[in-house]
Amino acid sequence: MARYALGVEYDGGDFLGWQRLSKPGEPGDETVQQALETALSFVAATQVDTVCAGRTDAGVHGVCNVVHFDTDVQRDVRGWVLGTTSRLPPSISIRWCVPVADDFHARFSAIARRYRYRILNRAVRPALARRYVTWERIPLDVDAMNIAAQALVGEHDFNAFRTVHCQAPHARRDLQSIAFRRDGDEVWMDVRANAFLHHMVRNIVGSLVLVGRGERPPAWIAELLAGRDRTLAGPTAPPTGLSFLGPLYPGLFGLPDEVTA
Amino acid sequence: MARYALGVEYDGGDFLGWQRLSKPGEPGDETVQQALETALSFVAATQVDTVCAGRTDAGVHGVCNVVHFDTDVQRDVRGWVLGTTSRLPPSISIRWCVPVADDFHARFSAIARRYRYRILNRAVRPALARRYVTWERIPLDVDAMNIAAQALVGEHDFNAFRTVHCQAPHARRDLQSIAFRRDGDEVWMDVRANAFLHHMVRNIVGSLVLVGRGERPPAWIAELLAGRDRTLAGPTAPPTGLSFLGPLYPGLFGLPDEVTA
Repeated sequence: MARYALGVEYDGGDFLGWQRLSKPGEPGDETVQQALETALSFVAATQVDTVCAGRTDAGVHGVCNVVHFDTDVQRDVRGWVLGTTSRLPPSISIRWCVPVADDFHARFSAIARRYRYRILNRAVRPALARRYVTWERIPLDVDAMNIAAQALVGEHDFNAFRTVHCQAPHARRDLQSIAFRRDGDEVWMDVRANAFLHHMVRNIVGSLVLVGRGERPPAWIAELLAGRDRTLAGPTAPPTGLSFLGPLYPGLFGLPDEVTA
Repeated sequence: MARYALGVEYDGGDFLGWQRLSKPGEPGDETVQQALETALSFVAATQVDTVCAGRTDAGVHGVCNVVHFDTDVQRDVRGWVLGTTSRLPPSISIRWCVPVADDFHARFSAIARRYRYRILNRAVRPALARRYVTWERIPLDVDAMNIAAQALVGEHDFNAFRTVHCQAPHARRDLQSIAFRRDGDEVWMDVRANAFLHHMVRNIVGSLVLVGRGERPPAWIAELLAGRDRTLAGPTAPPTGLSFLGPLYPGLFGLPDEVTA
């Protein structure tokens, strides 16, 4: 039995999220995991199950999500990459495949995860990048958003920013960095944490947009965090602007640079 | 009668190109001009015809194409922008509207035009940006492409790089700058000229990709240019990677910075 890690890129707009809703081969609405396992299972000519680093929601994009799978089937990494990609829909591709040690686990070995949120901040809706940005017509004060966001850095109970459907046993997470920047009409947020709660990035963005619009003072974010009450926070920002850039692993696993801490 | 200029953004993947194929309101395959004139005519409640800076081909994107139109109808610029955008398909939006003098002409007043070509240069096909990049799996030597491309700078007869369907009376154009750069897996070409022939950008890219792959020496581009024979040049690169960034006008017309020289 050998274990492999795959880097997976996908356009979340075409899927109901990452997680499999039915067994491969069974009818059901399509998820990334389902499409991926169907393609891998075809290449392996036997059932292949995957474990991923980040189970993204419907509409959220993957720049480099990472999965691992175990198999007895002998294929070179080129075969896993090109063979699997050739069986995938156009909105998913396998970026790389690396054989890994048995103690590598796509989810539990990750020491950090990075997300990016793109906001098109102008009076008129997007046409070109409309699948990849969220539109906000009110001019955002990026400096205020940056100041407010720094209250989130560190290890905190993020209960104020998780959905009621979140199944995590506790809400303590270590948010390592968060930064907004403006490039022309676009405002980008990059955030990194050891792990995220369900809807945590989108709920953080939703509250920070209220600060950016001037509807709330920057200090409100620290109050929300301390209050741990989801009902006081801003709305959940739409999934369209959100991309999972990928997880980060310790160097000892020998994965590509883009997913190595 | 008043004249207005509009900045138009569109996702070319949804259209058969810029130019109207049938009259507004008549059935026919959709073009950007057709959709735009239908929306403008609705807002004006009378027929509106447009003249554009760059008639892009099917599949080519517009970051900021510029059109002008004449009308007797009184609307504020906000009305033209938001009213028209609300009648357009999701893949087109009006970025701005500016009243202009009668001697402004979207096509003839432009002193330069800028295009960008995006190549995803990696072993595996794109999933995320697949509507906006052309895929090239052979590693490209960007330095060789840059060296080769400089032979094109200046005023030349570009007959070697125009399609046989090009209707321009002569092929002399002033190519002001051309540069390739690599950012991770992507190679971008930015090119600026007073004007371009039909398929000129895509034909230049098609030949330079052969240089980048090492199949032709850099000096080949200068030979092609001097030979003025289209049949000797490389293939026409696909439209997917091409975006018309927009025209540039003299400052006296008072247009937004992004289209002012």
